[in-house]
Amino acid sequence: MSDYSVFTSESVSEGHPDKLADQISDAVLDAILVDDPHARVACETMVKTGVAIIGGEITTSSWVDLEDLVREVIKDIGYTSSTVGFDGDTCGIINIIGKQSVDIAQGVDRKKPEDQGAGDQGLMFGYASNETDVLMPAPITFSHRLVQRQAEARKSGLLPWLRPDAKSQVTCRYENGRVTGIDAVVLSTQHDEDVSQADLKEAVMELIVKNALPAELLHKDTQFHINPTGKFVIGGPVGDCGLTGRKIIVDTYGGMSRHGGGAFSGKDPSKVDRSAAYAGRYVAKNIVAAGLAEKCEIQVSYAIGVAQPTSISLNTFDTGKISDDKIIELIRQNFDLRPYAITNMLDLLHPMYRATAAYGHFGREPVEMTVGGKTFTSFPWEKTDRADLLKDAAGI
Amino acid sequence: MSDYSVFTSESVSEGHPDKLADQISDAVLDAILVDDPHARVACETMVKTGVAIIGGEITTSSWVDLEDLVREVIKDIGYTSSTVGFDGDTCGIINIIGKQSVDIAQGVDRKKPEDQGAGDQGLMFGYASNETDVLMPAPITFSHRLVQRQAEARKSGLLPWLRPDAKSQVTCRYENGRVTGIDAVVLSTQHDEDVSQADLKEAVMELIVKNALPAELLHKDTQFHINPTGKFVIGGPVGDCGLTGRKIIVDTYGGMSRHGGGAFSGKDPSKVDRSAAYAGRYVAKNIVAAGLAEKCEIQVSYAIGVAQPTSISLNTFDTGKISDDKIIELIRQNFDLRPYAITNMLDLLHPMYRATAAYGHFGREPVEMTVGGKTFTSFPWEKTDRADLLKDAAGI
Ligand SMILES: C[S@@+](CC[C@H](N)C(=O)[O-])C[C@H]1O[C@@H](n2cnc3c(N)ncnc32)[C@H](O)[C@@H]1O
Ligand SMILES: C[S@@+](CC[C@H](N)C(=O)[O-])C[C@H]1O[C@@H](n2cnc3c(N)ncnc32)[C@H](O)[C@@H]1O
Repeated sequence: MSDYSVFTSESVSEGHPDKLADQISDAVLDAILVDDPHARVACETMVKTGVAIIGGEITTSSWVDLEDLVREVIKDIGYTSSTVGFDGDTCGIINIIGKQSVDIAQGVDRKKPEDQGAGDQGLMFGYASNETDVLMPAPITFSHRLVQRQAEARKSGLLPWLRPDAKSQVTCRYENGRVTGIDAVVLSTQHDEDVSQADLKEAVMELIVKNALPAELLHKDTQFHINPTGKFVIGGPVGDCGLTGRKIIVDTYGGMSRHGGGAFSGKDPSKVDRSAAYAGRYVAKNIVAAGLAEKCEIQVSYAIGVAQPTSISLNTFDTGKISDDKIIELIRQNFDLRPYAITNMLDLLHPMYRATAAYGHFGREPVEMTVGGKTFTSFPWEKTDRADLLKDAAGI
Repeated sequence: MSDYSVFTSESVSEGHPDKLADQISDAVLDAILVDDPHARVACETMVKTGVAIIGGEITTSSWVDLEDLVREVIKDIGYTSSTVGFDGDTCGIINIIGKQSVDIAQGVDRKKPEDQGAGDQGLMFGYASNETDVLMPAPITFSHRLVQRQAEARKSGLLPWLRPDAKSQVTCRYENGRVTGIDAVVLSTQHDEDVSQADLKEAVMELIVKNALPAELLHKDTQFHINPTGKFVIGGPVGDCGLTGRKIIVDTYGGMSRHGGGAFSGKDPSKVDRSAAYAGRYVAKNIVAAGLAEKCEIQVSYAIGVAQPTSISLNTFDTGKISDDKIIELIRQNFDLRPYAITNMLDLLHPMYRATAAYGHFGREPVEMTVGGKTFTSFPWEKTDRADLLKDAAGI
């Protein structure tokens, strides 16, 4: 490896069509979990000009007004008029949701709940790195900040000509594993017709880019591409058809870690694509928080209908304080990675998923939330409550 | 790193609902490219019980009977009756395709064709490893073989009770970078109601698993999970809603390499998500074929509307014969990674995409094909025609 290298990650705002689809899918999941925590939910959404289509498989005893819910999500994000390209009040809502296949259900359900089989086969990765406070890679962290700031500036009225759809991208320069500079920034934001490109570029630079990124990392050769197409009035589902599960790298580690391919949004925790990826993050983050390694990537895999993972593997990129084999042993001893055990370990059977469906599932602040009179922690997989245990067990 | 490690990848058959969606999207692209190689195509598909919905953005001068085309793809894959769960002749076809946003088009089109801007921002990876003949990771290669063999046994009538939908997963054991065993195999195949589970397991084991995997890698502790749910009669879009672009890890390196998140199917080569990922594979494969490294992963990134990549980076996992910096320099000198140049370098503007939409985009045999009287090579990014050039330039 050379002394320095560059790495690029991207993010998108909550108004991006794929993210709109993700948020609709997760809002459906949350609404069902309120009354039926054991529902089976796999909700997929497609949004295109004037229409939102919800599909997938749901088996539940709960009744939810899905049309109303979908309209609320769309409007909440800011798609409230045909001027911006999409209107939650007047768009078509098509529901082609079916039930979970009884063949799958009988293969996943077990008499003893702890034997519950994985809801699908698949491979999942978890990752953590001590390069930022939140133990996430820096490029995705900065990318999220840019689009979060875009949404803030739009919603607060600071830049009233901003519209919901936006994308960001950040190229970081690494020297000896630390970020020492930002070499390129791309930010495209949808905007009203009447703002000039010059005004837009200046305002985005001053009030979004400089606000979101640490000044000391921007240097004289940093390339800035602000709205490089020159015009981005048409946006949202008119400009780009949106689908659930199409931003899986934005949702996770921005490409810094590997990925198993499974999407998260719309899926209840019996689907290991989601729950085992969350558990993987929890494991990796606690290992890094315990100081057992500076970087940690874990892979787990499952067979459908089978509880125990078919494989667990680990990579600490030569930053481990103890051997990878020893760390895998500690994982096996301290984390039960069967689907039912994951659900309990992380307390996953309650609404919280809509909050995960924009700006990343990882590196987020856990917040307390109250749903139906009960209090839960959101982003429970971000807790580092097993770091001390791991440190002791490793004898360091 | 420990002496041995395990790695798991998965694949799905052409009858898997997400892959059905991918093949529909790419069949639409191919059909348009016949008469209009410069069309702008982004076709997204959703399939669910009894319906296929095609959406996205297409700007073309060509006229194609899309309804007919979609029906043909569905039937061709084997969904020809309500008994198997989906019938290309009688399902609903809904078309909500729009045109490419004029704001995007004006940002991508340039007076000089070589200045053509990237059709989107994004990051893409290319990868190659000398662990197999096709310079692909072994776990994904084996996973594809299992489901390819499933389709073969179904279509040839060898196992007439097989139905189109199937998934496979293979856990490989590595020692010193070489595969020395297969620790776990998962294969789930849809089947007719009247085959017993015992007959199914035996036939799948003998005629699919043992046929597809090298005997010397199977050992006494290899775990086999064949149809672990115990029943898989319901399949295809009834059991699972399918969407384009939801098998991006199956499409690429099975998780062995990192991924930028962009999907391929349905996208014309002006979309760098596709063309730059193909170029990345071409570059990485030629580097490995030239012997400059045993493994090579390249990352490129783009800004929408801008021709030159915003970043290029490289990882040879300590297997490089020359420094990574030197290899990056060779890439810059020998590969023009602007979108228009990629399209020319790999001859991408012709139909061939439907063949890529099942069993992986990489590690495939290039075949000659004739479309509209002209002969093309499919999978052109698999050629190693620049290996000698790179070897010479590197002086090894
Ligand atoms: C460029 S579109 C993808 C390509 C599109 N499907 C097509 O057929 O042209 C991807 C994303 O870019 C953003 N986008 C849309 N219009 C844009 C514009 N005029 N300039 C910059 N970004 C834009 C939106 O966030 C959109 O979801
Ligand atoms: C298990 S489904 C995903 C979960 C599904 N959306 C749900 O709500 O239950 C994923 C894939 O598994 C395969 N599959 C479907 N039914 C199955 C069964 N009964 N046993 C094993 N695999 C099955 C199909 O290839 C399907 O596309």
